[in-house]
Amino acid sequence: MTRFVLFIALVFAITPVATADPLPSWNDGASKTRIMDFVASVTDPAKETYVTPAGRIAVFDNDGTLWAEKPVYFQLIYAMDWVREKGAADPAFLKTDALKAAAAGDIKKLMAGGEKALLEVVAVSHSNISVADFEDSVRTWLATARHPRFDKPYDALVYQPMLELLRYLRDVGFSTYIVSGGGVHFMRAFTDTAYNIPAENVIGSRVATKYEIVEGVAEIMKLPEIDFINDKAGKPVGIDSKIGKRPILAVGNSDGDFQMLQWTTSGEGPRLGMLVHHTDAEREWAYDRDSHVGQLVKGLDEGPKLGWQIIDMKTEWAKVFPFD
Amino acid sequence: MTRFVLFIALVFAITPVATADPLPSWNDGASKTRIMDFVASVTDPAKETYVTPAGRIAVFDNDGTLWAEKPVYFQLIYAMDWVREKGAADPAFLKTDALKAAAAGDIKKLMAGGEKALLEVVAVSHSNISVADFEDSVRTWLATARHPRFDKPYDALVYQPMLELLRYLRDVGFSTYIVSGGGVHFMRAFTDTAYNIPAENVIGSRVATKYEIVEGVAEIMKLPEIDFINDKAGKPVGIDSKIGKRPILAVGNSDGDFQMLQWTTSGEGPRLGMLVHHTDAEREWAYDRDSHVGQLVKGLDEGPKLGWQIIDMKTEWAKVFPFD
Repeated sequence: MTRFVLFIALVFAITPVATADPLPSWNDGASKTRIMDFVASVTDPAKETYVTPAGRIAVFDNDGTLWAEKPVYFQLIYAMDWVREKGAADPAFLKTDALKAAAAGDIKKLMAGGEKALLEVVAVSHSNISVADFEDSVRTWLATARHPRFDKPYDALVYQPMLELLRYLRDVGFSTYIVSGGGVHFMRAFTDTAYNIPAENVIGSRVATKYEIVEGVAEIMKLPEIDFINDKAGKPVGIDSKIGKRPILAVGNSDGDFQMLQWTTSGEGPRLGMLVHHTDAEREWAYDRDSHVGQLVKGLDEGPKLGWQIIDMKTEWAKVFPFD
Repeated sequence: MTRFVLFIALVFAITPVATADPLPSWNDGASKTRIMDFVASVTDPAKETYVTPAGRIAVFDNDGTLWAEKPVYFQLIYAMDWVREKGAADPAFLKTDALKAAAAGDIKKLMAGGEKALLEVVAVSHSNISVADFEDSVRTWLATARHPRFDKPYDALVYQPMLELLRYLRDVGFSTYIVSGGGVHFMRAFTDTAYNIPAENVIGSRVATKYEIVEGVAEIMKLPEIDFINDKAGKPVGIDSKIGKRPILAVGNSDGDFQMLQWTTSGEGPRLGMLVHHTDAEREWAYDRDSHVGQLVKGLDEGPKLGWQIIDMKTEWAKVFPFD
């Protein structure tokens, strides 16, 4: 072996990661600066603000933060599609107004039925099935269903800047978690491939489950009752239950994320809370105070006073979706 | 820089981990062979039985599997000590027979009161306190309380062979989790220092918790009601809820672990289920079918037929505790 080869081997062994821009889809601006400054402050062992990798916990909402949520939460579209298929095979199954509206794809009529109607549609489509079969069903749906506006699979509507942020944080020693009001098993069907976030780092709402031996096979069965709603004040509770540490970075987009950001940013030491503000009707959607999904009122009014960073999608994101 | 320095640098960059015995406290025998063979079968990419690191999930019971559980679960001793201190400061607090028995350290009398008495003692000592303060309280107790037989801190009574097994599995790419009937916050107070298992890899029973702003400070408060019992059929449910993957290796010691081992070992591909059999009255304790803690009946009767490995503590462990 020559000295040259040895030298090259040594260089690779000690050279730090290349310093190319880790966030190319973020325009230079307040949000990108906050992120870069925050990472620098917690990863430099010489700084007083240094945080060991064990404490570098970053939590992300999913709907409206990591992927789109219009015209309505994609999980609800999955449920409606499920009801439509079931109704096509057996019309007598569509007994109630809620089920009929779901099968017709009539979001407005379904929403008019309130929480009761939504829960009915979710309950029938998310229960009396094993977790493994349910996740298969979601994956099959993702492979075939298309978003009405973009004509793409729903999991193509992830935000490119967030993919870069997740990867960047992991590269500098953070653990990245999803903490969403969405169903935990629904999300686990795609978070690994969509975000490189494995099942164990996904925290969500849950129906009750039961361990059963079904025809000789051990299964976790989903039951038709809500066990936990991982939203609003439920998010800090879900984080404590699963992670047991207070995060130092939290990103959301709606008032459902308020307590998660409040809990994260009110701890000692360096903290960063951020809210995605949907301001881009052209490339995505523009909505906040009056939206039926992702409503954002308190976060806009109180967030800036609490030091939270509002991410202006229109001006701060050079790219929204990977396919843009 | 000399060629010699470059050569040394290169050698360190490419030399695999030294091949010293990773399990020196395990005598050569059936259990050690099963462990080594299992690890070889799932970590060799050339084998059909290969499992990617993402799927290398190993779950361990805590009481009686990773640390001792006699004369009674250490968490109950913590609760009794808490009641005794409280009663010393305010004798009127000891209103019931259960609280009086706890304050007197009378385990027999307390156990005679059944589940109701135990729950009362646990409820008063584990609620109306923030998670952070509770974990501090447990750490203070561990630093001062002494085990009646060994006169050591309770967290000194961890099993040396299990410390080696945990470390070995992590070294070859496994994620190691605790899945215990014990309280999740109680365990998180010491699992990181005792086992190198961080809070996010600890799954346990839980009281209900609530996110609250207490005197201006955001806290997770523990409430006086049980939310989830992570035992028996609850263990697979807890694993699904937190990890979302079926483990490939499970280790327990009592019938509370039966379903966890059953779920683990009935999946496809290579699987390993093991039960610690407490057979060493001299160095630890000898108990199984008739014990009031860690009762093991079904596991002894059915485990071997299901291919589970029974670990005979007396003959297979060269060392029990690190201080031996």
